[in-house]
Amino acid sequence: MNLISIRDLDKKEIEKILDLSEEMAAGKIKRKYDKILATLFFEPSTRTRLSFQAAALRLGMSYLDFSPETSSLKKGETFTDTIKVISGYADVLVIRHPKEGTARLAGDAIEKPVINGGDGGNQHPTQTLIDLFTIRKTKGKISNLNVSLLGDLKHARTMQSLVYALAMFGAKITLISPKGLELDPTLIKEVEEKFDAKIKTKSELSFNDADVLYVCRIQEERFADPYEAKRIKEQFMLKSEHLKNTKKDLVILSPLPKINEISHEIDANNKAKYFEQAHYGVPVRMAIIDYLLGRQTRN
Amino acid sequence: MNLISIRDLDKKEIEKILDLSEEMAAGKIKRKYDKILATLFFEPSTRTRLSFQAAALRLGMSYLDFSPETSSLKKGETFTDTIKVISGYADVLVIRHPKEGTARLAGDAIEKPVINGGDGGNQHPTQTLIDLFTIRKTKGKISNLNVSLLGDLKHARTMQSLVYALAMFGAKITLISPKGLELDPTLIKEVEEKFDAKIKTKSELSFNDADVLYVCRIQEERFADPYEAKRIKEQFMLKSEHLKNTKKDLVILSPLPKINEISHEIDANNKAKYFEQAHYGVPVRMAIIDYLLGRQTRN
Amino acid sequence: MNLISIRDLDKKEIEKILDLSEEMAAGKIKRKYDKILATLFFEPSTRTRLSFQAAALRLGMSYLDFSPETSSLKKGETFTDTIKVISGYADVLVIRHPKEGTARLAGDAIEKPVINGGDGGNQHPTQTLIDLFTIRKTKGKISNLNVSLLGDLKHARTMQSLVYALAMFGAKITLISPKGLELDPTLIKEVEEKFDAKIKTKSELSFNDADVLYVCRIQEERFADPYEAKRIKEQFMLKSEHLKNTKKDLVILSPLPKINEISHEIDANNKAKYFEQAHYGVPVRMAIIDYLLGRQTRN
Repeated sequence: MNLISIRDLDKKEIEKILDLSEEMAAGKIKRKYDKILATLFFEPSTRTRLSFQAAALRLGMSYLDFSPETSSLKKGETFTDTIKVISGYADVLVIRHPKEGTARLAGDAIEKPVINGGDGGNQHPTQTLIDLFTIRKTKGKISNLNVSLLGDLKHARTMQSLVYALAMFGAKITLISPKGLELDPTLIKEVEEKFDAKIKTKSELSFNDADVLYVCRIQEERFADPYEAKRIKEQFMLKSEHLKNTKKDLVILSPLPKINEISHEIDANNKAKYFEQAHYGVPVRMAIIDYLLGRQTRN
Repeated sequence: MNLISIRDLDKKEIEKILDLSEEMAAGKIKRKYDKILATLFFEPSTRTRLSFQAAALRLGMSYLDFSPETSSLKKGETFTDTIKVISGYADVLVIRHPKEGTARLAGDAIEKPVINGGDGGNQHPTQTLIDLFTIRKTKGKISNLNVSLLGDLKHARTMQSLVYALAMFGAKITLISPKGLELDPTLIKEVEEKFDAKIKTKSELSFNDADVLYVCRIQEERFADPYEAKRIKEQFMLKSEHLKNTKKDLVILSPLPKINEISHEIDANNKAKYFEQAHYGVPVRMAIIDYLLGRQTRN
Repeated sequence: MNLISIRDLDKKEIEKILDLSEEMAAGKIKRKYDKILATLFFEPSTRTRLSFQAAALRLGMSYLDFSPETSSLKKGETFTDTIKVISGYADVLVIRHPKEGTARLAGDAIEKPVINGGDGGNQHPTQTLIDLFTIRKTKGKISNLNVSLLGDLKHARTMQSLVYALAMFGAKITLISPKGLELDPTLIKEVEEKFDAKIKTKSELSFNDADVLYVCRIQEERFADPYEAKRIKEQFMLKSEHLKNTKKDLVILSPLPKINEISHEIDANNKAKYFEQAHYGVPVRMAIIDYLLGRQTRN
């Protein structure tokens, strides 16, 4: 079994992984897998690569680290050949690749479980599971929460999956993004119909009703005009003043890294939970590996 | 004890390593070494580096990974100094280096076992052991098999060792290579005399008698004229049409990576065993490490 | 507890770590920590990185390796954010950084123990502990030994800490360095007063009284004039002739790498103990990790 897109999982399966993550976080489950995880990152990554390796280690596994710089890809080998070869060395593969669809391609080419660690602007299902887990952990539930998503919702890798999953779990979603960087309207329509959800959009940075505020990166490269980029980034940067009338128990999340999306002084605000969220990467990824390996064995 | 060249081993020792590889592949032997393997790759490598690390992990060992990019070699340290220092951190060292003779040099400088992971165009003994193992595993034996070697037999790192070892085991060898890229005639003469072998050479890509077809890379850099390179590569590329009248149980091998040496549709042909061959890298390298560490302890 | 500077430790604590190192080197202590060490090297390093990883493995731990090349720092993330995130993946962090004060900054930002693996020209406390251990191991004691320090004592990362620690332990220090590359006189004065020590300086390369000769690198980049650099390096290079009238049991040490500071033929001289010193990196770093993790648990 592979984990390529959050859409590969139904609500029950997601809940099972979140429950398993909970037990992993609490140290209730001790696994001692005699298995190897291979991390194959064709793009830079701190969080996803290291937290998957940490998750493997915490499960008693070990890891192999493949990076394209020191590989035969330089000699012109195809991606599929590389994956096929490495599938003989490891028991689970995590793949990040700048090109959309590559994780699915890898999953189809080999028999070992493949986890998508992010493919282009497409999918990043393990991040979405971490996001859901952090919301559930900090707020006790997901359904009926007011969740505001702020930033570049068009290009942010995780936003499409997150909106899909939040709607599935009955959250009330509000979208706030610069002009031209809105979430794909086809997705909004699909999600509203499928889950009987109502997704709001607005333009001002006010979060008075919000239970959760999720802040995404705005990448300057997305703008033709650097002055416009700077102006928009400044305008959409989350500052302390925006938090004045927010709920006491508001939770601020971010997939990180943050560059100028969140003003530094907010780090010290106890509403900021993005470092905690990053740390949940380990138990959630432990749960994902355990879930896939467990299913592997049972099938 | 070191493994620098296939010539360091006699027939009995090779057979012992192949038998040990067989047991490793079958999972019959469980080792739990409390030891560290260091991989020192001064050249890019996917297969050799990762399969050695996987082999170490499967033996219960752990690994350290040295790469010249993040090292003091940049500051001007000599190769021997680097090796001497690292020999204090690990129990076995695998070294790949672009310069011939470097693995031998390292083996002489330190007391820990050194395994040659390929030194320039010179030696790559563990690849040869994997090749022999794969032939024996897929064909049941090596002696009296018709083995055809196709491609650049002059520069391919593993060909000199493989021809030597195949002749030692009584295989009937046929060489097919572009003009100017033939196997060193001194080696042919030596091997024929030493093992009472008869090595054939031909120029057409017909493999009707072959039990094993081993396909090597043809590197464009070896040609002065890029058009000539392209023409030769195209002419020596293995295509489905070349397999029409071959034996039903022909086995196609390659050290990989393959770029254009083997047409992609052959991957799906069940005569193609090169991915299986790549995967045997792990049990064979487990056997090699076990053999060296075992001998180490006994001495 | 962190280890940022040798000044964080008093004499008793240093002695405890040296005793612990002794037991680690003798294999008397077996630890089986179920913990993860993270190595974060923002500068190239062979010795420090690999020997810390080896130390972790020898303690039954595993390691995560962070390098800035494959990270989100490229996207503009702050150092502190990176450290905060990684602190959630590991149990101890070793940090090397070209900027002075970074290790202290990291130690203040997170709750997990931080070990300074060298910050700019500032501190490198674990190297100093290895130096002290090697002296005590090879000479039986530190106090009252004649220790000569040769080379660029101004920029060498470890010299300030080493002089401080040697004086603390009652060694008699002689400094020999090129003009302009002398040890900071403020430090000399401080150390002389604090430990009632007398530090000699001289200019000729004669070591007749020396029990220990510690040779530092002279980096050409420190000179404006490359001809001057070459002349000085040649003049301060340790050659066999300098060893003629030295004590029979003189011990020559170096933090390594050595480029042209020590003539190659000295490697074979049994007074040269710098490779042994490098190998002691493992037991001493095992002791340091064990000491920090032990204290962590007790507090």
